[in-house]
Amino acid sequence: MALEDAFAGFTRRDWERDSPDGIVRLAIVGIGGFARNRALPAVAEGQYCTTTTLVTGSPDRARSLAETYDVEHVVGYDRFREGEHADAYDAAYVATPNATHGEYAIAAAEHGKHVICEKPLETTVERARDVVDACEDADVILMTAYRLQTEPAVRRSRELVRDGVIGTVVQVHGAFSHPLLDHAGPDTWRLDPELAGGGALVDLGVYPLNTIRYLLGCDPTGVYASTHSSGGPFATVDEHVAFQLEFPTDATASCTASFDAHASSQLELVGTDGKVAISSPFGGVVPQEMVVESGDVRSEYTGPPTDEVREQFDYFGYCVLTGTEPGPDGEDGVADLEAIEAAYESAETARRVSIGERDRDFDGEPSV
Amino acid sequence: MALEDAFAGFTRRDWERDSPDGIVRLAIVGIGGFARNRALPAVAEGQYCTTTTLVTGSPDRARSLAETYDVEHVVGYDRFREGEHADAYDAAYVATPNATHGEYAIAAAEHGKHVICEKPLETTVERARDVVDACEDADVILMTAYRLQTEPAVRRSRELVRDGVIGTVVQVHGAFSHPLLDHAGPDTWRLDPELAGGGALVDLGVYPLNTIRYLLGCDPTGVYASTHSSGGPFATVDEHVAFQLEFPTDATASCTASFDAHASSQLELVGTDGKVAISSPFGGVVPQEMVVESGDVRSEYTGPPTDEVREQFDYFGYCVLTGTEPGPDGEDGVADLEAIEAAYESAETARRVSIGERDRDFDGEPSV
Repeated sequence: MALEDAFAGFTRRDWERDSPDGIVRLAIVGIGGFARNRALPAVAEGQYCTTTTLVTGSPDRARSLAETYDVEHVVGYDRFREGEHADAYDAAYVATPNATHGEYAIAAAEHGKHVICEKPLETTVERARDVVDACEDADVILMTAYRLQTEPAVRRSRELVRDGVIGTVVQVHGAFSHPLLDHAGPDTWRLDPELAGGGALVDLGVYPLNTIRYLLGCDPTGVYASTHSSGGPFATVDEHVAFQLEFPTDATASCTASFDAHASSQLELVGTDGKVAISSPFGGVVPQEMVVESGDVRSEYTGPPTDEVREQFDYFGYCVLTGTEPGPDGEDGVADLEAIEAAYESAETARRVSIGERDRDFDGEPSV
Repeated sequence: MALEDAFAGFTRRDWERDSPDGIVRLAIVGIGGFARNRALPAVAEGQYCTTTTLVTGSPDRARSLAETYDVEHVVGYDRFREGEHADAYDAAYVATPNATHGEYAIAAAEHGKHVICEKPLETTVERARDVVDACEDADVILMTAYRLQTEPAVRRSRELVRDGVIGTVVQVHGAFSHPLLDHAGPDTWRLDPELAGGGALVDLGVYPLNTIRYLLGCDPTGVYASTHSSGGPFATVDEHVAFQLEFPTDATASCTASFDAHASSQLELVGTDGKVAISSPFGGVVPQEMVVESGDVRSEYTGPPTDEVREQFDYFGYCVLTGTEPGPDGEDGVADLEAIEAAYESAETARRVSIGERDRDFDGEPSV
């Protein structure tokens, strides 16, 4: 691939090979800040999904939100689990605290609904595996909401890597920090290890972890991690984490995440013949600025603004409408939890922890 | 410090507090590519040093080089050790393969000459300690040639960090890769572990290692490292290394180095209130491009071109003329070797290795 070709049609939806009819009706389960501010508008703006149902612990307070987005039903969690209004939606978007993902995803699957579930898929490998099994048993589609996998800068980077434009990837650096308490109180569920499953690694580190696995097209075989906490509101979780992944190709990934640092994110892959860097990839609004070097050629590119959340829901809707297995499926979510559990074990034991080699399809493309 | 002040007088020599008379006469010991192409011109262009003697295994072949730079004497290694023409120089710049640094540095010290020695100071902590001891016994100045410590972008970054412009440093990323065989044959001493003391970690990884120690003003207390080699010319050394340093402040540094990847280097420090990034800091010609964020303020700065090698030799000459202990002294070189030995132990044992806490002056400034 010539370097210029990578940037031609930067925002092209390479996954969109058909023009399916119909629309996927969504129940949004858990309407916290991200669901309200990003998911609802993105679904409304997108092509293949529409929101018909809101599921919340405070239905009364959600009426005006429902009105704004022309949503037919608002139900509480218990009635959602019981299947009330289940004929009004085809799929559920689960955006509740991590430790409750399983219960709502499995309930949706048992009602025969497809599922798109926020990352991490659950708080442990075992619980995430239960979600995967339930969706398999129900024969419904399960997508883990790794929106970066539908982000144009990331998809173009993956093509560059796959086509050998930077040679064999040797070393990767990924970082994501975000001052949590600037945007949430100290009682946020993200600082409750029971509800979150961990701290900065689970909430932020999963972004470089998943994105690097996606870009390299393989799973890490080992990890070393060190975690730090200054106490106070961060006493029971990792406030900061640094982890180093080893891949079967001998590539390494040096990653960091922090709940209590200046907002910043970066991703850089260096290969035998070049490098790819994406500016601020993980913060939710990607400036679409990339630097690619291939041999002696250096290219700086800024793509048009793209709403990665809209892309994600359109991708999910497309998969449901066409019966396509999503790239970021349930196994993808399980794989990250395997790495996360290994990383926490490493942080406790101060040694490298092996991650079992797994046999999964890494195509990341609808197999149409 | 206001952000703008950091960039005012970007190339100022904050270490230059006097205007000493005189000039330091140098013997350059080992005239490989770097000595010929960078050191000799830099010394000639600089203010406080002059080259009077070349020391080489092939004196006849060095005559024209000596003529070009108006160098009085060319001697072989044995005669240098014996002290021939010792009255023609005040100091020796040792730029031979790593495992021979000690023998020439110690010979120079024993003749009462000051020493500036390329990094790493030697191939082991023990041998480096012998160099430090010899220079102490002879009461001569010993500087380890960490030229980055005289690089304006690095010195300005250190001021920003020290003055709290980015808050407390939380996480650092440093990377340096260089395709060695594009510039050297497979028989280069850099791939001989006996002569080099290691591979990519020793030759390239020492740059982020030392620069990060300098910027943070403290020593790592632990390290985890993984090394890889694809065999062939890299069979006996680390072709690639990834290492993660832990500092007593709880900051971490995620570092990589590679002998066999696209030429690239980067350095980024994220703190509680901002970040500092230096573009391509380690390749020998720094573009002086920095990005600094402090709170909500973001600043991109490009400083004027500066020859860091000239800065280094002028700094050394200044220290000798004023009787000032250099910032990058012998202990600084020993400290990196302690981290390097610990990293290699970690790579063998797959566990975190502690690095003994050391009591050293990290002022990095001439204590005038």
